[in-house]
Amino acid sequence: MPAPKEFLDFVDKNADKFIQRLSEAVSYQSVSGNPDHRQDVINMSKWMNSQLRGVGIDTQLVELGNQKDQDGNDMGIPLPPVVLGRIGNDTNKKTVLVYGHLDVQPAAKSDGWSTDDPFKLEIFDNGQLVGRGATDDKGPVLGWLNVLQYHYEANKLGDLPVNLRFCFEAMEESGSQGLDNVVKKEFQSGGWFHGTDCVSISDNYWLNTRTPAITYGLRGIAYYKVTVEGPAKDLHSGMFGRMVHEPMTDLIKIMSALVNVDGSIPVPLIDSLVPPPTEQEADEYKKLDYTVQDLDESVGASIGLSDDKVKLLMGRMRECSLSLHGIEGASSGPETATVIPAKVTGKFSIRLVPPLTPDEATKRITEYVQYVFDNLGTKNKMNCRMIDGGLPWVANTSHWSYVAAKAATEAVWKKTPDMTREGGSIPVALTFADALGNNDGVLLLPMGRGDDGAHSTNEKIDRSNFIEGTKLLGTYLYEIPAAAAAAKN
Amino acid sequence: MPAPKEFLDFVDKNADKFIQRLSEAVSYQSVSGNPDHRQDVINMSKWMNSQLRGVGIDTQLVELGNQKDQDGNDMGIPLPPVVLGRIGNDTNKKTVLVYGHLDVQPAAKSDGWSTDDPFKLEIFDNGQLVGRGATDDKGPVLGWLNVLQYHYEANKLGDLPVNLRFCFEAMEESGSQGLDNVVKKEFQSGGWFHGTDCVSISDNYWLNTRTPAITYGLRGIAYYKVTVEGPAKDLHSGMFGRMVHEPMTDLIKIMSALVNVDGSIPVPLIDSLVPPPTEQEADEYKKLDYTVQDLDESVGASIGLSDDKVKLLMGRMRECSLSLHGIEGASSGPETATVIPAKVTGKFSIRLVPPLTPDEATKRITEYVQYVFDNLGTKNKMNCRMIDGGLPWVANTSHWSYVAAKAATEAVWKKTPDMTREGGSIPVALTFADALGNNDGVLLLPMGRGDDGAHSTNEKIDRSNFIEGTKLLGTYLYEIPAAAAAAKN
Repeated sequence: MPAPKEFLDFVDKNADKFIQRLSEAVSYQSVSGNPDHRQDVINMSKWMNSQLRGVGIDTQLVELGNQKDQDGNDMGIPLPPVVLGRIGNDTNKKTVLVYGHLDVQPAAKSDGWSTDDPFKLEIFDNGQLVGRGATDDKGPVLGWLNVLQYHYEANKLGDLPVNLRFCFEAMEESGSQGLDNVVKKEFQSGGWFHGTDCVSISDNYWLNTRTPAITYGLRGIAYYKVTVEGPAKDLHSGMFGRMVHEPMTDLIKIMSALVNVDGSIPVPLIDSLVPPPTEQEADEYKKLDYTVQDLDESVGASIGLSDDKVKLLMGRMRECSLSLHGIEGASSGPETATVIPAKVTGKFSIRLVPPLTPDEATKRITEYVQYVFDNLGTKNKMNCRMIDGGLPWVANTSHWSYVAAKAATEAVWKKTPDMTREGGSIPVALTFADALGNNDGVLLLPMGRGDDGAHSTNEKIDRSNFIEGTKLLGTYLYEIPAAAAAAKN
Repeated sequence: MPAPKEFLDFVDKNADKFIQRLSEAVSYQSVSGNPDHRQDVINMSKWMNSQLRGVGIDTQLVELGNQKDQDGNDMGIPLPPVVLGRIGNDTNKKTVLVYGHLDVQPAAKSDGWSTDDPFKLEIFDNGQLVGRGATDDKGPVLGWLNVLQYHYEANKLGDLPVNLRFCFEAMEESGSQGLDNVVKKEFQSGGWFHGTDCVSISDNYWLNTRTPAITYGLRGIAYYKVTVEGPAKDLHSGMFGRMVHEPMTDLIKIMSALVNVDGSIPVPLIDSLVPPPTEQEADEYKKLDYTVQDLDESVGASIGLSDDKVKLLMGRMRECSLSLHGIEGASSGPETATVIPAKVTGKFSIRLVPPLTPDEATKRITEYVQYVFDNLGTKNKMNCRMIDGGLPWVANTSHWSYVAAKAATEAVWKKTPDMTREGGSIPVALTFADALGNNDGVLLLPMGRGDDGAHSTNEKIDRSNFIEGTKLLGTYLYEIPAAAAAAKN
């Protein structure tokens, strides 16, 4: 069932109004990372709440109490409330839960914005709508408001093809404190999200600037610190150089053994546990609209690990990667320090794909690091530990939610979407997969393009992505009943 | 010719007065590294100047103009003057140039001093004289004043066994700015140091707390930075991990290839150019009063590269060492940053022994680093360069100045001195060796013990080291004529 022509026309007719509303949303300096802006974040949540009520949605603001610091201490700063919404309760319809976030990254003109005020949406002749949050994530969130506007104004909510649930938080850029518990609770019997069939998240981007994408996977992550220590205090390299085992020498040997220059990971049973792609899967990668030049442009240098786009994309999407981030305790400034540091801590992380979980990876990593260290022949002491971890996620794209999303993308954009997996991690996707009890019911449906600059200066969303993206979100809902019915047969 | 008994008795009789004068010297907060104390440094130089005049020495204060910053810009702060001194002009006598410095490291009670005021010399029952500069270098400098006091008061300067020249600077702890030019100039015809036969520097320490030492060598140093860069900006490790060559991976591989865990240096023609010790030289190392326990105590852990004291001491004294100091541009704090840094710079230095000069080492190092980098198979860019360098120095201990110092040490301390080489660098020794035109005429004659804590809290000199050390300096002068005469034959 395609979307009614009236809906598509309504969106086109109201495009300028929708952009005006996006401009209003962008004007809230809802920077969650800066406590000085906490009231702006709260105001943004309240604005969203009233917007939802304005289009007939039943809402609730869930208070989360005060923010806590890393040690769990009350910081005396209130967290912004989570905005819950719901409409429809027809047991014959699928229930779709929509997630988005209302907070943004910091932004200041002095960071290098070419507009006068990052919090004033500027509309350029080339169709770019420039402003903080335009694409991450106010544009997509407002896309849903636009869809609801049609149903409220033109359709009087007569025939929403699905039941809708909403979860809009405002601490996403700062760790989503408190969200997991809310989601878990609301999924339980009696909760607002109880009975949810699938979850749709629009908080990532196309692979490029040309072709719409649907995202069915995310890499997990495990972050490690490996500490080597020896002397009781820093030593003078003149007095003790070549007398003692130097912690830095040992640590550098360990770090050097963690990853190869070609990106492969010598830690046993990391790379080898990842099953090679089937022929069909490999074909899917060939279809993706991506070139080596796309990579060169996005990183500003020709430093790709391969000249084959399929290998490049598989490296990001379906292989683990290990990056060395730095060293604590060693000299890190421009000074020519000649000290032998007493205690140094290497920091590295591994991006994970199934079947590698953080626990599984940690077992391999710590055993391997211990093995490498034991074979160094040093008298220093070593400790390697995981600091933080998040599961990888991959969905089966034959799920009806994906079938509906694909049909909607083809209907709106007249293009076959790139089926992508992200190399990064979006923890909230895992939160929902966990609450839902399966990975396949979670869908990432990006609205913006690969060059939107989500966390950078001059963040933008293209007018066409905002408007056609709105159509995409609505059409996706209309496509669900048929796709779900087909899945049953 | 041993020192006259009258001299030794004079020193014993005046010991308390000498300590009183040391106390006065310590009270000057002559911290050269802190411009706020510059007037104290200048006052200290003036005090020394008048002390020298008070014992009949002809002196001159050489002004050095304003201090310059690293870029050569005038800092608007006057440098303290260099105090020149001279006495004796007998062409039948040897001319001995004495160097010392009047400035000190910073010190504050809050750093952890156990005395109330680091600049008030505290005299403890165990004989320790605790205060900033007590051993580095006011104690030794005042040792010379004590010697001159005897000649002035008791001997009326009748029979100094040598001609003496003095060079007391007050910027040693901050790079000795301007000193090189003064030394060079004064060594020229008509200068105060013209005709100098040997140079004596008391600015280092015994190998331990038990046995006096004479030092005949210093390691040189060459400091390097190696930079690897690739992307135009820092990258997200989720988006680009295993897509691009990461500068950190390449840099860590290079750093890992620079030094082995056992301290040996895999760079070709560094270790192998250093000639192995002769049997006689190896015997000298066996005689040194040092144990593995001494090392363990000084570093606070059992992390020695060997259980053989000879290997340990040779590692410090007659082998090159390479230490990895840190990385610029990478994450260096406790944060769990997941960035791929765009440009990282590894810092390392090599301590050099003959025949390795900084230039020679740099040739080997840069060639090797280029070779290692070329074989990595990365598309990133690399640059390796020397930032700073200083020559190594080794003297022949059969020189008459060493013969005299050894005889004096045995006469005063009743012990055979440890003949040591320092693992660190004392640039001023090279300045004098260069001005003198030979290495052998420079002598390091330490006054303090290995546990004096020169740059630490609770810096001290032992009363016995100050008093017997004064006798040592005087006796050294008396031993010179005979040693020099024997050398002629």
